Amino acid sequence: MKADKISEAVVRRLPVYLRYLNELHKREVTTVSSQELGQKLDLNPAQIRKDLAYFGDFGRKGIGYDVMYLIDKIRHILKIDQQINVALVGAGNLGQALSNYNAYLKDNMKIVAVFDSSPAKIGRQINTLTVQPMEELRDTVRKLHIRIGIITVPDFEAQHVADEMIGSGIEAILNFAPTIIKAPAHIRIHATDFTTDLLSLAYYLENGKDDNEDDDQ
Amino acid sequence: MKADKISEAVVRRLPVYLRYLNELHKREVTTVSSQELGQKLDLNPAQIRKDLAYFGDFGRKGIGYDVMYLIDKIRHILKIDQQINVALVGAGNLGQALSNYNAYLKDNMKIVAVFDSSPAKIGRQINTLTVQPMEELRDTVRKLHIRIGIITVPDFEAQHVADEMIGSGIEAILNFAPTIIKAPAHIRIHATDFTTDLLSLAYYLENGKDDNEDDDQ
Repeated sequence: MKADKISEAVVRRLPVYLRYLNELHKREVTTVSSQELGQKLDLNPAQIRKDLAYFGDFGRKGIGYDVMYLIDKIRHILKIDQQINVALVGAGNLGQALSNYNAYLKDNMKIVAVFDSSPAKIGRQINTLTVQPMEELRDTVRKLHIRIGIITVPDFEAQHVADEMIGSGIEAILNFAPTIIKAPAHIRIHATDFTTDLLSLAYYLENGKDDNEDDDQ
Repeated sequence: MKADKISEAVVRRLPVYLRYLNELHKREVTTVSSQELGQKLDLNPAQIRKDLAYFGDFGRKGIGYDVMYLIDKIRHILKIDQQINVALVGAGNLGQALSNYNAYLKDNMKIVAVFDSSPAKIGRQINTLTVQPMEELRDTVRKLHIRIGIITVPDFEAQHVADEMIGSGIEAILNFAPTIIKAPAHIRIHATDFTTDLLSLAYYLENGKDDNEDDDQ
């Protein structure tokens, strides 16, 4: 498997497959066809077969994919067959909302620490976590083997927080602040800017009719 | 301009260009090269030139792009040269956080109404908006010409809320609930699932070194 040949678009679809497969598994469904996946996920079945073929040819004609095998395979590819710990910085509304999503993060990925620089927020309880001061970031990242950071601070603080995270040994960052973060090449940064999503949605307001979500490739 | 030929990946990059161009304009910078855009936005300059060429050849060799012209062009393509009103349903932490982003939505796109079904939330103030009961959705959508909806309710309520939105005449939906929404083909649905972003980030934890954000195409 040439992992670095997998396009970002495919990598971004894998968690979507995984979520639905987990649902099927819970319902004790053992096999699924690309047609069914396609209908449920609003993707072309041929696209799905192509995506999954990246990881070896484990679908069987007329039978479909083994749900549990596919779950294991995707979890392995996404590296969530191991526990991955996440730190969140910025305990405002968005940070609290995301921390509450922990319930959905069944796949060995958990927000294990929340930080803020505001004395008003430090010490507050969000579910099972207590908001810690920024000064504790480095120690906590090391102690809990935190590898991913989530940034939910205002834009003018985001770069500073990212620098702190990277200095603490965090390897990848999900940035919700509406600013572009600069980082060394070996640090992976994904931006999740809601305004970008919203603005790009406007594009489809009148042109959308003949566009059937053909995705990126 | 064949609008429906523009790939989703390009459409999603346009707001990113726009944000930086607005920043340049504020600083009274009048021209910008694809090299500079590329450096700032962490994209290949050739990719940027290709993206912008979709909309006509308005860059000039050795001079670069006229910032204001590019802003106007992108705003026109994204259809935000007109006012676009947005309704948000789900006034929890996430809904409140997003409503507070209104300050960043300078580009003629505004959340103009917030709804919730919980009596505890109805009547609450979020900035200048008062949380309205779901029963008022249809009337408000019509009265305020709301075209886009944002869903920030729990997953089990999301499909119902989407149905209500579509029934009210909303044309496009940004869904933050971790569930897949079914809608007629002419309704554009973008999913912004934070868990998907987070899980796909894990993929890059060890493989990321030789991957320089080559994006989707």
